Order: sequence, then C-alpha cells, then structure tokens
Amino acid sequence: MNQKTIERIRKFSEDRDWDQFHSPANLAKSIVIEAGELLECFQWSDSEFDLQAVKEELADVLVYCRNLLDALKLDEDEIVNMKMEQNERKYPVDKAKGRADKYNKL
Amino acid sequence: MNQKTIERIRKFSEDRDWDQFHSPANLAKSIVIEAGELLECFQWSDSEFDLQAVKEELADVLVYCRNLLDALKLDEDEIVNMKMEQNERKYPVDKAKGRADKYNKL
Amino acid sequence: MNQKTIERIRKFSEDRDWDQFHSPANLAKSIVIEAGELLECFQWSDSEFDLQAVKEELADVLVYCRNLLDALKLDEDEIVNMKMEQNERKYPVDKAKGRADKYNKL
Amino acid sequence: MNQKTIERIRKFSEDRDWDQFHSPANLAKSIVIEAGELLECFQWSDSEFDLQAVKEELADVLVYCRNLLDALKLDEDEIVNMKMEQNERKYPVDKAKGRADKYNKL
Repeated sequence: MNQKTIERIRKFSEDRDWDQFHSPANLAKSIVIEAGELLECFQWSDSEFDLQAVKEELADVLVYCRNLLDALKLDEDEIVNMKMEQNERKYPVDKAKGRADKYNKL
Repeated sequence: MNQKTIERIRKFSEDRDWDQFHSPANLAKSIVIEAGELLECFQWSDSEFDLQAVKEELADVLVYCRNLLDALKLDEDEIVNMKMEQNERKYPVDKAKGRADKYNKL
Repeated sequence: MNQKTIERIRKFSEDRDWDQFHSPANLAKSIVIEAGELLECFQWSDSEFDLQAVKEELADVLVYCRNLLDALKLDEDEIVNMKMEQNERKYPVDKAKGRADKYNKL
Repeated sequence: MNQKTIERIRKFSEDRDWDQFHSPANLAKSIVIEAGELLECFQWSDSEFDLQAVKEELADVLVYCRNLLDALKLDEDEIVNMKMEQNERKYPVDKAKGRADKYNKL
C-alpha cells in the first residue's frame, strides 16, 4: 500500500473521530468479520464468483489490517518479514515442495 | 508492503510449488482461518494480549491477502481506494462523526 | 443435544469457575475462532479431510453455542424455529429449488 | 435441538433440492460465515447488542452445524461427549479453576 492510500485511511478515521473505537480487539473482530464476508463470495462455489464483490471485501480486510497496524504502531514490512523468516525455516523447500501439509506433518 | 517483501512472498510460494493450491477460494478460506487465530489473541480479554502472537497472526493474514491479490492480479492501492471512495460516500462526516453505527442506521 | 450432555457442559464451566469469562461477546469470538479451526480441516482440499479433526472442531463450535444459549438464557428450538420460519418465507420452494442464490437475487 | 426441529431443517433443504450444495467443505465455510455475522453484533461494543440479531445469527450457526452433522452422519451427543472428555482431561479442575489460560500454559 502506498503512503497516499495509508494517509487516506487514517484521515477517514480521524475525520469521523473513529479512532476511539479502534482498540486492537475491536479491529481483530473487524478483520475476521470482513474475512467472513470475503469467504461468502465462495460459499457455494469455488470457481464462480463475483469479482467486484471479492475486490470490495478484500479491500475491507486490508483497511482493517492497516488500522490495526496503526493502532499498535507496527511496521507492515517488519512483521511480514519476521513471519516469512519463520515460514522459510518451518517449510524447507526440499520437504514442502508440492505438498499442502502443515509443517508438523512434513 | 514494499516490493522486496512482495517478491519474498512470491518466491516462497514458487520455490515450494504452492501456487497450485492458491485458488482464490482456498486463499479466502486461509484469510479467515488466520483472522480467527488473530482474534484468538483477544479471546478472553480485550486489553491483555501477547503482542508477539498478534504480530505473527496479523502477518499471516497479510501474507494470504497478498497471495490473493496476486492470484487475481489485483492492485492493492486500486481496490483499497475504490473501497475508500464508497466508504466516504456511505459515511458522511457530519452524520458518522463519533458514532459506530452501520451506514444503514445513520 | 440431550439434557445430560447439556448438564455436562454446564458442570464443566461451573467446576472451573469459567462462567465469569463467558460474556456473550467472548462466546461469539470463541464460536468464530472454533469455526475457523473447523474450516482449517478443508483449507486446501474440499474432498480430503481428517474426519476425527472435523468431529472435534465441530464439537467445539457446538459447545460454545450451548454456552452462548445459556449465557443469554435462550431456548435453542425456539430461536431455530423462529429463523426457519424466516428462511421458509425468504426462500419459497418454487423460486429457490436447486439454486444456491441468496434470497435477494432470486 | 428436538427431533421435530431437526426434521424441519432437513425438510427445508430437501424441498429446495439444496443437499447438493451441502458438501462438508461448503458447510464449514457457511458456519464460519454465519459465526462472523454473529460476531458483528459485538463488533464495536461488548455490552450493547441487538438481542434479536444475536438470536438470528446464532440460529444460522446452529442450522448449518445441524446440516454438517447430517452430511457426515454424525451424532451430536456422541461428538460433544467425546470432546468434553478431552476437555476434562486437558483442563483439570485444580489447575484450571478461575483461569482463562490455554491448556498448554497451565
């Protein structure tokens, strides 16, 4: 997400005085609620879906993720790279290649 | 997310030949699964939580969101700005200020 | 669920003095968290799944639903029949037969 | 849930020829989607909520749980008692009393 988009999200909340509702717990709830709406696009079929609805629901998830990053003063690249390092260790290429198993079953 | 982080996520999947599992439906499932794990950090308390666990689970959500953006060839800033435009219309500042109501109750 | 099973669930919480944690909001969180774990059984495949894991996760969802019914003093049959009445009206057989569309698209 | 309510749920699906959509994976998706809608009742406040909305969303979760029990020919009391047995072992009264910690932290 570029800085201009991030600033738009922040201004949206500030203008409406909504930061008071953005506790980490409320934002975690919001992320899973929107993730459920995203999944609803695929409720009865994996292959036929409304792309516009997917875009809107995925955007909702991303906006609340940004709100949570802000609420906890986290750096997105820092936490994602920290997690990718864990993933790379947990799923060595030679064991995980082409397999969808969880790391503790590899 | 900067380009280097995005490339790391892509390489991780490619190296493991995992793109075959990354159908939009499977990724939508993955996002809500990880969002549930994020919420677990706040299951019994809104104020006491393990920050390290929050970072890891939020990172998981963000990685799967990136995978879904890639699977559908979507531009993150484009879809987020499209949604913010809708939000700005649905929640006019004068009506929404300081209120957590849904737009259809304003 | 028969009365003996219901009593076992209640005794479990009472013995551990856990009713203090069972606010409706915490139980709603718990239901979605366990529902996410249930979905994890189907994360990468719709047809191959670990039946034992499905049983355990579905049971977790059902136990928290029972806790929420108890916390709000709701009667399961009453609320389910109330909802089924709505569903029967929203999805008339002649329009809904064989179609997975949402009622507002019928 | 009494037998009459269970039969009503079954008849509802049969009349609409909907069992074809009720794969275990689709029902697991449906449970988490409805659980997300239930959580939405508590999105911004733990204490103020619309009781009627809670009843309807909880009923939706319960109906899809019943559909999944049917799809997999599971007995609700059997799986819940199996899980309660595990829970009673994992959370011994003397260690778990009054504490919301996960079993692996007790």
